[in-house]
Amino acid sequence: MVKAQMNEFSLINHYFQSISPHRPDVIFGIGDDAACLSIPQGSELLVSSDTLVADVHFCQSWDAYAIARKAVAVNVSDIAAMAGTPTWLTLALTLPDYDESWLQRFSQGLQDSLHQYDIALIGGDTTRGPLSMTLTIHGLVPKGQALRRSGAKPGDHIYVSGELGAAALAVQASVHGPNELDMNILLKALKFPTARVDLRDYLNTYATAAIDISDGLSADLNHICVASQVGACLDAQSIPIHPLVAHYLGEAAVDFALSGGDDYELCFTVASEHETVLLSSLLKAGLTVYRIGVIQAETGLRIKGLDEVVRPLRATGYQHF
Amino acid sequence: MVKAQMNEFSLINHYFQSISPHRPDVIFGIGDDAACLSIPQGSELLVSSDTLVADVHFCQSWDAYAIARKAVAVNVSDIAAMAGTPTWLTLALTLPDYDESWLQRFSQGLQDSLHQYDIALIGGDTTRGPLSMTLTIHGLVPKGQALRRSGAKPGDHIYVSGELGAAALAVQASVHGPNELDMNILLKALKFPTARVDLRDYLNTYATAAIDISDGLSADLNHICVASQVGACLDAQSIPIHPLVAHYLGEAAVDFALSGGDDYELCFTVASEHETVLLSSLLKAGLTVYRIGVIQAETGLRIKGLDEVVRPLRATGYQHF
Repeated sequence: MVKAQMNEFSLINHYFQSISPHRPDVIFGIGDDAACLSIPQGSELLVSSDTLVADVHFCQSWDAYAIARKAVAVNVSDIAAMAGTPTWLTLALTLPDYDESWLQRFSQGLQDSLHQYDIALIGGDTTRGPLSMTLTIHGLVPKGQALRRSGAKPGDHIYVSGELGAAALAVQASVHGPNELDMNILLKALKFPTARVDLRDYLNTYATAAIDISDGLSADLNHICVASQVGACLDAQSIPIHPLVAHYLGEAAVDFALSGGDDYELCFTVASEHETVLLSSLLKAGLTVYRIGVIQAETGLRIKGLDEVVRPLRATGYQHF
Repeated sequence: MVKAQMNEFSLINHYFQSISPHRPDVIFGIGDDAACLSIPQGSELLVSSDTLVADVHFCQSWDAYAIARKAVAVNVSDIAAMAGTPTWLTLALTLPDYDESWLQRFSQGLQDSLHQYDIALIGGDTTRGPLSMTLTIHGLVPKGQALRRSGAKPGDHIYVSGELGAAALAVQASVHGPNELDMNILLKALKFPTARVDLRDYLNTYATAAIDISDGLSADLNHICVASQVGACLDAQSIPIHPLVAHYLGEAAVDFALSGGDDYELCFTVASEHETVLLSSLLKAGLTVYRIGVIQAETGLRIKGLDEVVRPLRATGYQHF
């Protein structure tokens, strides 16, 4: 219902057609009514969609390179949380206008992320409207091995894959006033999260449940607990807080790290009998994970404070509505 | 970066979790980081994404029921054009606010469409922002049988699957002033297109190329010609024009039907030696298609007018930018 000069096909062709790594499982990608993909025998397909809206999930003023990098990481993170291998991506991009330098930067970020994770861009759509994008990521997992939220059992230990709170502190920087050097570190955490696909084989072999921390540790761990019909008790002292969060927030740092989202580390659970072999495998690979608590039969979240007292913990985090 | 009362999980759970038909190939759908799907051996996966933006692809003032019906049909149409079977859908919905009656109507439309085409809703995302939605449709096709745009050969006859122009006339109704009864018919074509999945087996067996007519016949046929490195000559007299378009536009009706999009009929090509058996099979099934021209080796589009003179035809249609 709107006519203008450059049509979506030229746009997609020009910027997005040839930025993907080659994947032999793409029979054909961009350029027809649908892409056609080959699924290896013995694999199941994983699919997840995420929308990122300007000034909700990223700032309109960001370099388009960072917007693309973040958009891909956020999506790939969902496949990482299932212990899957990311494979193909569709991108639906809504743009307020045709801005060539923005598209060039965005396309460069997209290309770098696609190569980082070995993902083919297989299609999409460009439309005119307020800046936003929806990415649908596909992945593969050996039959029956998708890692769900629902497999945690009482006695399993709870882990996170990295330090928390930096991305959320970047969002609230105006309140806490970090210096410029620190702010650059925090913004890097916010704009350039890494989807933890490097943990795939370890999770696949040893984890009982997993989720990516997008909304905040307590909210996302709560999803595991609800899906698994269990509860959890965290140990405040063990939660890996980003050093700048500890520095700027002092005593409030633990609460901040529990509720701040956007880090895209993974939270996962491991049966205690598998811990030793998991940790020694990770050590060999140079990977660090943090044990932060234990799954319990009693539902609800609890936390043992620095004073050793166990208190109820509210599942708070980012809420979209 | 925005906090409010109802989170996306409650929203999705409440309105969208249980509206799908049951499909045994959905190992699990909504409710984890990704959905997990089983692909039958011998099948390939088709994937297509489309975004619909308020007041570009539909009117914000439409009943949300119609918005949902149209959004699904537009997406399923891409699978129909590949001669595939639609299977799974993700929905990323961006809403300006939490409007329960709107969500109820939308959800009802979605449910009716999912059942119409036997598609499972396997995931999605809800975000706050100006009304828009991105749907990613998945489908299956027997290995090596996806019908592409690129298979048309000189001598193939060109077909369309139904009458054209009604949806485009509804958009331009203020110019042409149809009466209320006629307007209702035109709006039905615009709001409730049917994806032509009923032609799947015929296309799979007999067609050499296909595309769905979303941007307009001449623009979409041109995509087939460019992809197939051929040209086409249409016969103006044979183009099936919706009776109301003929009535309101008179002599301008052919041009209007050539450039008006949004009908979601299919345009396809058939080798002449397969025509007789295709047409008799369709006749038995009670399906009507229209032969509108012929593929030629010379590139470019041409049309034989009502005066029998062949003239060049511009590929005009809906352009998003």
